Amino acid sequence: MAASASISKSIYFGTYVHSKSLTELEIRPDGVIGVDEKGVIQFLETNVKDVESLKSRREEWKDAKVVKIKGEGFFFPGFIDTHTHAPQHPNTGLFGKTTLLDWLQTYTFPMESSLGSLSKAQRVYSNFVSRTLSHGTTACAYYATIHVLSTNLLADICLKRGQRALVGRVCMNSNLSPEYYRDMSIESSIADSRASIDYIRSIDPSGEIVLPIITPRFAPSCTAHCLTALGDLATETGAHIQTHISENTSECELVKKLFPDSKSYTDVYETHHLLRPKTILAHAVHLSAEERALIKAREAKISHCPASNTALTSGCCPVRTLLDEGITVGLGTDVSGGFSPSILEEVRQAIWVSRFRAMNHGDVHKLSTSEALYLATRGGAAVIGMEDKVGGFEIGKEFDAQMISLGTVAEEGNMEGKFTEGSIDLFGFEKWAEKVEKWVYGGDDRNTVAVWVRGRLVHSTSKFEG
Amino acid sequence: MAASASISKSIYFGTYVHSKSLTELEIRPDGVIGVDEKGVIQFLETNVKDVESLKSRREEWKDAKVVKIKGEGFFFPGFIDTHTHAPQHPNTGLFGKTTLLDWLQTYTFPMESSLGSLSKAQRVYSNFVSRTLSHGTTACAYYATIHVLSTNLLADICLKRGQRALVGRVCMNSNLSPEYYRDMSIESSIADSRASIDYIRSIDPSGEIVLPIITPRFAPSCTAHCLTALGDLATETGAHIQTHISENTSECELVKKLFPDSKSYTDVYETHHLLRPKTILAHAVHLSAEERALIKAREAKISHCPASNTALTSGCCPVRTLLDEGITVGLGTDVSGGFSPSILEEVRQAIWVSRFRAMNHGDVHKLSTSEALYLATRGGAAVIGMEDKVGGFEIGKEFDAQMISLGTVAEEGNMEGKFTEGSIDLFGFEKWAEKVEKWVYGGDDRNTVAVWVRGRLVHSTSKFEG
Repeated sequence: MAASASISKSIYFGTYVHSKSLTELEIRPDGVIGVDEKGVIQFLETNVKDVESLKSRREEWKDAKVVKIKGEGFFFPGFIDTHTHAPQHPNTGLFGKTTLLDWLQTYTFPMESSLGSLSKAQRVYSNFVSRTLSHGTTACAYYATIHVLSTNLLADICLKRGQRALVGRVCMNSNLSPEYYRDMSIESSIADSRASIDYIRSIDPSGEIVLPIITPRFAPSCTAHCLTALGDLATETGAHIQTHISENTSECELVKKLFPDSKSYTDVYETHHLLRPKTILAHAVHLSAEERALIKAREAKISHCPASNTALTSGCCPVRTLLDEGITVGLGTDVSGGFSPSILEEVRQAIWVSRFRAMNHGDVHKLSTSEALYLATRGGAAVIGMEDKVGGFEIGKEFDAQMISLGTVAEEGNMEGKFTEGSIDLFGFEKWAEKVEKWVYGGDDRNTVAVWVRGRLVHSTSKFEG
Repeated sequence: MAASASISKSIYFGTYVHSKSLTELEIRPDGVIGVDEKGVIQFLETNVKDVESLKSRREEWKDAKVVKIKGEGFFFPGFIDTHTHAPQHPNTGLFGKTTLLDWLQTYTFPMESSLGSLSKAQRVYSNFVSRTLSHGTTACAYYATIHVLSTNLLADICLKRGQRALVGRVCMNSNLSPEYYRDMSIESSIADSRASIDYIRSIDPSGEIVLPIITPRFAPSCTAHCLTALGDLATETGAHIQTHISENTSECELVKKLFPDSKSYTDVYETHHLLRPKTILAHAVHLSAEERALIKAREAKISHCPASNTALTSGCCPVRTLLDEGITVGLGTDVSGGFSPSILEEVRQAIWVSRFRAMNHGDVHKLSTSEALYLATRGGAAVIGMEDKVGGFEIGKEFDAQMISLGTVAEEGNMEGKFTEGSIDLFGFEKWAEKVEKWVYGGDDRNTVAVWVRGRLVHSTSKFEG
């Protein structure tokens, strides 16, 4: 399964589903997707009943491997997680009644500081990458820790497992960061970030699988001079940037106090040349209209992290407003502010958050299932700058996909209470759109039976293999 | 596994966890729970390292069967689902952007009417009871349909599977109910309800496992005369009552129009003698202070259904207010307004809803993990009138419990991506309270490896058996 292993020309045979636009989910029954040795989609067809006659029509595919849907199910684009913290994986589910600033001190900084140990980093990162892959995440923007070697190890693991990743060493030099866990100077902050960027580029020179990302934790973690130097580093290296913005009202107050000359939280990043097309801003819950306009003008991107925003009582991000204003939005799990490594869970949580906004601000704020799935795939692809490569099924795109398999209920029902296929029950009456809805609202990693990145199998369950 | 099969005296050996009060979760490491042949708890101990020395101290238990926790885990009381609709099980996950009144017409009534077929009812009900058991639900208040025979079949299935159940034939005679799915007269409504009550009492005369429950769907479904007759039937039979109240603002407006002489939605039920200690009112999202006071005075109970209220954009039930006012509250899955048969999912959803109330109304509205678990067990037990029998582990209570098993991460991590133990990752640093939190926020039916009702094994997975 190593990313370097060769793959064979393959025909993926079965219904495929993807977003055509923000509002339209396209369902193509009995589809075929032809993927070449480089993992690139060469053709798509639909309503194909018989793969042999297809092969006779397409001479050059006659020896291609055929991968068929197992039971009831469909192919779906791989999920894109635009914001998560790999070192916080062991804290998943631990937040109690805290909110952002006390949560950082209680749970996050102690755990992150311990990831300086490479053996611990190996344990945590290998398990977390395996987890995100098992939930169908084919590309992920990771925060690591301040430690160069552990950060590099995370990139090694992603490369080995074949998961597309943006991997960022966290920069935090201000004395608001705890003494036991901070960059000791601006110079070391920049040097360490540069070392990690260089390493990641050395292990994957083409940048097809892993890429570096400059990662100022968030404005309160960095001094103004450090932010300036990071802005310069971004100009010099052309690397992506990720940070947090406007997650929680106490944090927003803190930023106002720390940067009294800035017009806004967004303006802090603008001033230091950190607001760019390759910038991913996580949360964006409490932005003003002026801030949103600035983000839009700079073509910076937003990672919506609904599970985290709800768990930490941060607020309800106005996703409809962001979309209406033309800002690019994807979804992020934000482990461990978020309590799940699953983007499918974020799809649901995005819908719940939109319901709560609707209760206060009107029905227009509701996201549909299709819209949330768009954010999880094409939206996320645009956030990480890969919208031309992944996020949907088209000729020329690379095959990042998951096979979704759904359970069926026997005619006689189930008096024994054994369930081997996960939590979804198809009764046979469901139209395709309803099968997809059942997956969205009731599915989990059991339904993701196989995952591919660039045509390479990077995860599978016994259901797929059996 | 039939409810009538005999059971052997058993010692349950391992940490047990239950609610001591609304706010306090009690964790008893290395516990033992001794359960007699009738499923009644005879003794509890804690910090027991060795079951053999226990047996030597307790002579009369020397031949008892010993059931040990598999791997990392604990015993927890069975969940109590105080409100769900078994015939809507096939629609789980299907709601789109609808709200209550259009959702009923689009999804619910067509599905329910089809459950007049006994073969379909067998298929749907056997699968649903198996599903709820697999999620650790040991007692459940079910709405069936208007059909007597299908309703009785649901009771048969619950009895056979050994799940405690309140089973109600749905009463709906008003012409607001669709012509294809309604009781044709008050007389038939009462006669059919009585027939189902009689049947359920005949198959389980002691009422230990299945009980009838009088079920006017909700005020708009029944004429005033029908409600009066149902109130009389409750007096005559002493049966439980369940209905819906104040779920959605359009519904509340409709009730005002239909019952112009009533002071409130709650007063409609009061007027018809349906507001009693044995009454379960589902939703209660938009009640006035006067209505809450009346419910409290009548000792009626409330089933909080957060997943459903969020999915259908009904609103955020003010659970903190209800609890502060001394009203008894439990949790309900409300399938298929709710999108999951799992009370563990409702525990999470109750916490999210409380977060959203906190965002608007202040931190006091936040429910803690312990409080939500209380609602799922002891709260639910009080809602269905079984607080003296189940909901926690004490001498004299019946053993309704689930064995929770959690996964651990190997020292070397996980580079292969195979997960066989569900979605929870213990790293070894977690204190007991943190293990419970990880289960609450990341657990699912895979972690519920065995379920008992009155000491009888009613569900188990291969992990428990293997």
